[in-house]
Amino acid sequence: MNYKKLDHEDIKVLSSYVDEDRIFTKENIEKNFSHDELGTVSAYPDLHIFATSKEEISLIMKYAYQENIAVTVRGAGTGLVGACVPIHGGILLDTSKMNKIIELDKTNLTLRVEPGVLLLDIYECVEKEGLFYAPDPGEKTATIGGNISTNAGGMRAIKYGVTRDWVRGLEVVLPDGSIEKFGGKVVKNSTGYGLKDLIIGSEGTLAIIVEATLKLIPKPLKTVSLLVPFENREDAISAAPKLIMDHVLPVAVEFLEKQSLQYSEEFLGKKIPHNNFEAYLLLSYDGNNEKAIDEDIEKASKLCLEKYNAIDVFLVDTEERRSSVWNVRGGFLEAIKASSDEIDECDVVLPRSNISEFLKYVRILSEELDIRIPYFGHVGDGNLHIYFCKDSMPKDLWNEKIEKGFKLMYDKAFSFGGLVSGEHGIGFAKKAYMKTLLGENQLRIMKGIKQSFDPKNILNPGKVI
Amino acid sequence: MNYKKLDHEDIKVLSSYVDEDRIFTKENIEKNFSHDELGTVSAYPDLHIFATSKEEISLIMKYAYQENIAVTVRGAGTGLVGACVPIHGGILLDTSKMNKIIELDKTNLTLRVEPGVLLLDIYECVEKEGLFYAPDPGEKTATIGGNISTNAGGMRAIKYGVTRDWVRGLEVVLPDGSIEKFGGKVVKNSTGYGLKDLIIGSEGTLAIIVEATLKLIPKPLKTVSLLVPFENREDAISAAPKLIMDHVLPVAVEFLEKQSLQYSEEFLGKKIPHNNFEAYLLLSYDGNNEKAIDEDIEKASKLCLEKYNAIDVFLVDTEERRSSVWNVRGGFLEAIKASSDEIDECDVVLPRSNISEFLKYVRILSEELDIRIPYFGHVGDGNLHIYFCKDSMPKDLWNEKIEKGFKLMYDKAFSFGGLVSGEHGIGFAKKAYMKTLLGENQLRIMKGIKQSFDPKNILNPGKVI
Repeated sequence: MNYKKLDHEDIKVLSSYVDEDRIFTKENIEKNFSHDELGTVSAYPDLHIFATSKEEISLIMKYAYQENIAVTVRGAGTGLVGACVPIHGGILLDTSKMNKIIELDKTNLTLRVEPGVLLLDIYECVEKEGLFYAPDPGEKTATIGGNISTNAGGMRAIKYGVTRDWVRGLEVVLPDGSIEKFGGKVVKNSTGYGLKDLIIGSEGTLAIIVEATLKLIPKPLKTVSLLVPFENREDAISAAPKLIMDHVLPVAVEFLEKQSLQYSEEFLGKKIPHNNFEAYLLLSYDGNNEKAIDEDIEKASKLCLEKYNAIDVFLVDTEERRSSVWNVRGGFLEAIKASSDEIDECDVVLPRSNISEFLKYVRILSEELDIRIPYFGHVGDGNLHIYFCKDSMPKDLWNEKIEKGFKLMYDKAFSFGGLVSGEHGIGFAKKAYMKTLLGENQLRIMKGIKQSFDPKNILNPGKVI
Repeated sequence: MNYKKLDHEDIKVLSSYVDEDRIFTKENIEKNFSHDELGTVSAYPDLHIFATSKEEISLIMKYAYQENIAVTVRGAGTGLVGACVPIHGGILLDTSKMNKIIELDKTNLTLRVEPGVLLLDIYECVEKEGLFYAPDPGEKTATIGGNISTNAGGMRAIKYGVTRDWVRGLEVVLPDGSIEKFGGKVVKNSTGYGLKDLIIGSEGTLAIIVEATLKLIPKPLKTVSLLVPFENREDAISAAPKLIMDHVLPVAVEFLEKQSLQYSEEFLGKKIPHNNFEAYLLLSYDGNNEKAIDEDIEKASKLCLEKYNAIDVFLVDTEERRSSVWNVRGGFLEAIKASSDEIDECDVVLPRSNISEFLKYVRILSEELDIRIPYFGHVGDGNLHIYFCKDSMPKDLWNEKIEKGFKLMYDKAFSFGGLVSGEHGIGFAKKAYMKTLLGENQLRIMKGIKQSFDPKNILNPGKVI
């Protein structure tokens, strides 16, 4: 792919579109903007622009389209697969300053936001009005634009679905600079092909999200968590689908193992209560009726103890307990990152019935390859986060083990009907595995779709397909 | 578009793929198969084939692709926009005999079905196992393939979403005959562009659905409806969004007016209790805790009476009452159809805040055009069903009024951020309105998508785009 290398004239034109304190040329670009959270791939753009409006983005794209300049969109940079890294140089279009909440509509129960609004700001804005945006990805400082671009999942997917289910409408800038609206404030839509749903999960390769209309619901009045210890991994994991079947639909079913717990406790310098067991499920239930939730919890506890071999059931009901347990759970990625000089990760998703067998295989792989592979996961929805740790081994050996290990792991997952990514996306890092899984036909269709949106292939080139 | 007219040789080849009692040539095709439920457009295929397996469909498509033969897929024919009518002749590929339920997976809470399974058979199959497939379109004898192809919505969308939210995976045959899988039994998926979501709502123009994996949840233990009469339409409609905001999320909020009620009562020869009011909301609440639902209902009743000007609140709690009220509600379309020699309909969707003002406009339009326009709707989700009745007026005048009336009505809807179709789709009948709403850019993208799936444009040509 031959993109124009930005020259003095290009920079002059592009500089005329934005304030000078929002545009940075190569020598002034911070290292931070050359990679994402995981940092397995890095590259500098020629120009880093903080956009502040869709009109600005439209102007920039019109020019980039005309001049054949590669453009990569970046939100908060919390991704893990290199999707926001400008591997072909050109413009890094940063939407993190487009962080206005435009409208909270209490009649239609929608929230209109700019793409750079952080997830934690959305929660704060809607929850103080008694409303609820349910998707709950681990990384709360991600932007909503990034969440939509990866179809982020999170911990409440069993009961509430993923980001896709909470986006009613999108406004986007196409690669040629034109501005289009897909969907809107409406609850239903059967008006032509699902372009909104195509943008969701497309990782900035089809169009630039400049506004999103999110669905809200009344906030559940109460949420309670249970920490349920088990004697071993198998017992914990096999309890999860049974619990879900048993007429008490939980909000979240997280799986924790002693090892990940210890990493996180050490990293955070905090301990959770009852931390001396082999494996745990962390369950959440919510609702609008206090008594009903109490009954749900009682039933879940009883089932865990009497039918699913739980050792005990601890109620996580005080603010202190809640924050300690969920902070430790939330600290897993950071803790594992801190435990090794380099890590690589996969967020494979499987039918929940196959989790136990799959994780058994991961343990075998860890032994066979002689590599540390900690993991944790959303066992309720079959989405695992698996980390390969370099632990100071020589680079060559690391690359060799990663390549072999990931291939074997994905092959096993595919044999169970699993997919490459549950919520982190494909970006740059997972392209080869997606190709293996989906095959030539689907790749050809995806390339055709890319071509319809972006005939010059200037938007986030080299990603996803 | 130039498609091959089927000759003797084609019919011989195609006949070799299927049993002879499942293939019909032009002279033997029943009139029923030349149109859909509404019948505003009709055309006969050259060949009507009942397929019974994906392998058969694959063979047929390989041949059709090679020979450039148009193929239109049909389910139960319950559509309202002509999507299943073979306007370019060729093959009518009927999937109604592919009606096997393949697997109910209680661990992953999924149901695998062939495309011809009827909605009512899905309910029966899963509910007897204590499970729940939530989408609830009015027409229970539609096939699941048709439901997926239009992204059918139905009455429970406020709480449970639409068909899109309940499809985890699809297996399809592409126009060239190859078989592909999108998604699977997994809860989350961020593996490349959302091809599954692109097939959903594409009305048989991109690929042929040969298997669907549906999401299930544990069945709510109890559902209760309330019939709430109001003095006038405005009071009823404006109560709906307030109720939804007020922390008691209903399953359904249907709007009924005296006139539609009377049509349906006369048509069915049944009366509902308390049928002498101007306007009604029909509310449903469900849940797993009897006491909690009772409290929800009590609260809703109180709000309706004390804050939203309801005249009364009637509990629809016996089987007899439930069946009488919901049958009358379900009979609206049939009743309105029976009340006129010809009708045309639209299923516009709007932000729920604009329903009242929009319906005021429809009444004005009805007077100005001197045409009967009954309607009813899912006011909870902003989706209305509006019927223009010919009432024996001359054909020319009817066409004139329809054209003028639909244009004005859609323009008004668009001005409120409304869309052409909430759940019935675009098919043949609504193409012009979609073009007006979405514009050239979006149409161009959709055509590109069509081209990627169906480069020879043989699959359901002349529909949607």
